[in-house]
Amino acid sequence: MASINSNYLKLKAGYLFPEISRRVRAFTENHPDAAHNLIRCGIGDVTEPLPRAAITALKKATDELGHRETFRGYGPEQGYDFLREAIAQNDYREHGLLVTDDEVFVSDGSKCDTANILDILGDDNIIAVTDPVYPVYVDTNVMAGHTASADDAGRYEGLVYLPCTRENGFVPSPPSQPVDVAYLCFPNNPTGAVATKAQLQEWVDYALKNDTLLLFDAAYSDYIDNPELPRSIYEIEGARDCAIEFRSYSKSGGFTGVRCAYTVVPQTVTGRTESGERYPFHALWSRRSSTKFNGVSYPIQRAAEALYSSEGKAEVAALVKHYMDNAAILRDASRAAGLEVFGGEHAPYIWIATPGGLSSWDVFDKMLHEANVVITPGSGFGSQGEGFFRVSAFNSRANALEVARRIQAVKW
Amino acid sequence: MASINSNYLKLKAGYLFPEISRRVRAFTENHPDAAHNLIRCGIGDVTEPLPRAAITALKKATDELGHRETFRGYGPEQGYDFLREAIAQNDYREHGLLVTDDEVFVSDGSKCDTANILDILGDDNIIAVTDPVYPVYVDTNVMAGHTASADDAGRYEGLVYLPCTRENGFVPSPPSQPVDVAYLCFPNNPTGAVATKAQLQEWVDYALKNDTLLLFDAAYSDYIDNPELPRSIYEIEGARDCAIEFRSYSKSGGFTGVRCAYTVVPQTVTGRTESGERYPFHALWSRRSSTKFNGVSYPIQRAAEALYSSEGKAEVAALVKHYMDNAAILRDASRAAGLEVFGGEHAPYIWIATPGGLSSWDVFDKMLHEANVVITPGSGFGSQGEGFFRVSAFNSRANALEVARRIQAVKW
Repeated sequence: MASINSNYLKLKAGYLFPEISRRVRAFTENHPDAAHNLIRCGIGDVTEPLPRAAITALKKATDELGHRETFRGYGPEQGYDFLREAIAQNDYREHGLLVTDDEVFVSDGSKCDTANILDILGDDNIIAVTDPVYPVYVDTNVMAGHTASADDAGRYEGLVYLPCTRENGFVPSPPSQPVDVAYLCFPNNPTGAVATKAQLQEWVDYALKNDTLLLFDAAYSDYIDNPELPRSIYEIEGARDCAIEFRSYSKSGGFTGVRCAYTVVPQTVTGRTESGERYPFHALWSRRSSTKFNGVSYPIQRAAEALYSSEGKAEVAALVKHYMDNAAILRDASRAAGLEVFGGEHAPYIWIATPGGLSSWDVFDKMLHEANVVITPGSGFGSQGEGFFRVSAFNSRANALEVARRIQAVKW
Repeated sequence: MASINSNYLKLKAGYLFPEISRRVRAFTENHPDAAHNLIRCGIGDVTEPLPRAAITALKKATDELGHRETFRGYGPEQGYDFLREAIAQNDYREHGLLVTDDEVFVSDGSKCDTANILDILGDDNIIAVTDPVYPVYVDTNVMAGHTASADDAGRYEGLVYLPCTRENGFVPSPPSQPVDVAYLCFPNNPTGAVATKAQLQEWVDYALKNDTLLLFDAAYSDYIDNPELPRSIYEIEGARDCAIEFRSYSKSGGFTGVRCAYTVVPQTVTGRTESGERYPFHALWSRRSSTKFNGVSYPIQRAAEALYSSEGKAEVAALVKHYMDNAAILRDASRAAGLEVFGGEHAPYIWIATPGGLSSWDVFDKMLHEANVVITPGSGFGSQGEGFFRVSAFNSRANALEVARRIQAVKW
C-alpha cells in the first residue's frame, strides 16, 4: 500500500496567498461595482513589459530552432556556457568578485532553487529562518520532515526562528546557539530591509566559526543602488567558504512569467558526510541538476543573456527605477497618512506598522473595503509580522499614484 | 556543521552518459580525422526542426509580453488553463478517456516529474523498477535514501528489480510479492518494447489488489501507431484508481531544448497517511507545485498548445513518422547484418543483442572504432541490459541511412 509523505499534512491549510484570494473573491462578489476599481499591491509580481532586448533574443533563438543547422535539443542541465559566463562576468567578476563560470547554475526560478537545495542537505541539520520570512523556506523544510507540526502562532517546532523587529531594524544578528544552515534574504522579502556589509560580515564570521551553511537569497539585489550596501554575499570576506547565493531575473528583467534564475555554488563550500569527511556542495548540486533537471529552455537562456547587453542593461535599470519610483511614491504617501513606514529603499516592498492596535488582517480588510487595495498582511509571513503589512511597489505608475491617493484617504 | 545528503555518495560514479562522453572524447582526440565522421545514435535527442506552429505561437506569445496590456507575470504553478484543457481534451477525452482539466499538471519535463514525484511519497514504500531501466527512476530513489549501496552488478539493495528479457518480450509481469510503487515505461526506454492492453491490465489488476501506485511513463506514446496498443494507462480499466501518467513534448514536438511536459494525477488515486487514512495524491502534487515550482514559461506553454492545432498535429505526425522511418531503416539494416533485433516498432529505440559473446561495452567500442557510430551499451541501463545495445532513431535521414550502411559494413 503506497504511503504518502505525511509531512505535507503538517502544513497550515490557510496558506497566505490562497486566503488572500478567498477574501478578495468574497469582496468582489458582494461588491461587483468595486471589483473593477480594485488595485493589487499584494503578491510581488511585475507589471511592466519585458525588455526589448530580451524579446528580440527570445524570438531570434526560437527561429534558430526552426532550422536543422541551428536546431538545439537537450542543453547542459547546469545551463549553457554563454549564459553562465555572462552571469559570472557581469554580476561578479566585473565587480571584483571571484565567481567562476562553472560555479553558476542556471535554473527556472529562485523559488525552485531555494526549495530544491534541501535535496543535497542532510536531514539532521539545525535550520534557522527569520521571522517574518519568505514562506517557501519554511514550508519546504516542513515538507522534508525537518519539523513537527506548527503551534498556534504558526511556528514549527524544529526550526530556529530569528525575530526581525523594529529594534534590530529587521536585520537579525546570528543566534546565540550554533545552527547548521541559515536562510538570509536581502533586500528582504517581506520587510524591504537591507543588510549592511558589517551586518553580513557578522553572519559570515558566525558561519565560519560554527561551520554554518548560509543560503543567501539575493533575488532583489538589483534594487540596491548604494554602492556601500552589498548586492552579493560574496562581497563579504570569507563568504566563498560558507555561502550559496540565489539570484533571479524575475524582478530585474521582469521575468516572472518567463522563468529564469541562477544559483552560485562556490567550489569551496563544503558539508559533512555521514562518515565525518568534507564534501563539496558544488558536486552534489551539479549531480542533482543532471539527474532531476533538464536545463532551462534554450530561447529563455538567450533572453536572459540579452539582459547583459548594453541595451538590456539600460532596460533593466529603467525597469528597476520605475518600480523604485513607485516605492518612493507609496512610502511618502504612507508617511503623509501618518503611518510608520519601513523598507521601500533599495527594495520594492514597503513594510508598514498597523496603526491603532489593528491586526494585520484587520488592515487587510480595511484596505480592501475602504480603499479597494489588496495588500499582504504581515502575519502571513510569520508571527513577528503581526502588526505590519506589506505594500508591493510592482505596479503601473498610474496605479501607484492612485494607491498613494487612496492610502491617504483612508481614515486611519 | 552542515551535513550533506550522504545518499548521493551511494550513486555509482560512472553514470552512463558521462562515461560515453569520456570514451568518445578519448577516441576523437586520438583520431581527429574520424571525429568529423562521427554519428551519434546514443542519447535519445531529437534533431529535426521545431514545428512551425510551435515557433509561430512562441514568438507571438513573446510579443504579448512586450506590451503592458498583454503582459503576463506569474502564471498558475500547475499550468495555464488553456493548455491543461487542450491536453485533457486532445490527448484523453477525444479518445474516450476521462481526464479532467485540473488533473493535468504542466511541467518543464518528464525527467523532472518522474524525479520529483518522490517528494509526495513516503520513505517506507517498497519500490519496483524494471531492469534495464531509465536510470532516473533508480538514481532518484538512491538520492532519496530508499536504498543501500549498489552491488557489483550495479543493483541497489532496497529496490525490487523486474527483469526484462527475451523470454518475457521485455515486458515483465508484476512480481510475486506485493510492492507499493512500480515504475513502468511503455513504449520502453531503452528496449523499445510496447505493452499490450492485456499486459497492462495485468499490472492494473495487480495494483488494485495490492494497493500499488503505478508511475506510468508514456513519454514515447506518440510513437504508437497501432490502435490496439494502449497509448495511455487510462485505456486500462481501473487505472484511474492506481496510476499517475507522465507525458512529454520532447519526442513528439521536438521539445528537448524547449522544455514542456505534463503529468496526469487523477483525483481518485490515493495513498496511505501515517495514521492509516487515505489521502489523494492530487492534493499533494498540487501543493508541491505551488510551493516548489513557479510554472512553465508562458511563451513555452503557448508553443505546446500550438501542437494541438490542426497544423501542429500534422507537423507532430510528420516528425514522428520521420523518426519511425529511421527506426525501420536501422532495424532492417541490423537484421541484414545478422544481428538479433528488438524494438523500433512503435518506439524510437532499437534494442540489439550483442553478437558472439561480446559485452555491451565491447560493442560500444567496436561501433565507435570500426563504424564511428556512438551507441548506448545496454549494461548502462541495468544488469539485464548486458548483452544488448541501444540504437536511437533520432537523427537526420542522411545519418540514419549512413549508420545503416556502416552497421552492415562492420565485421560482426
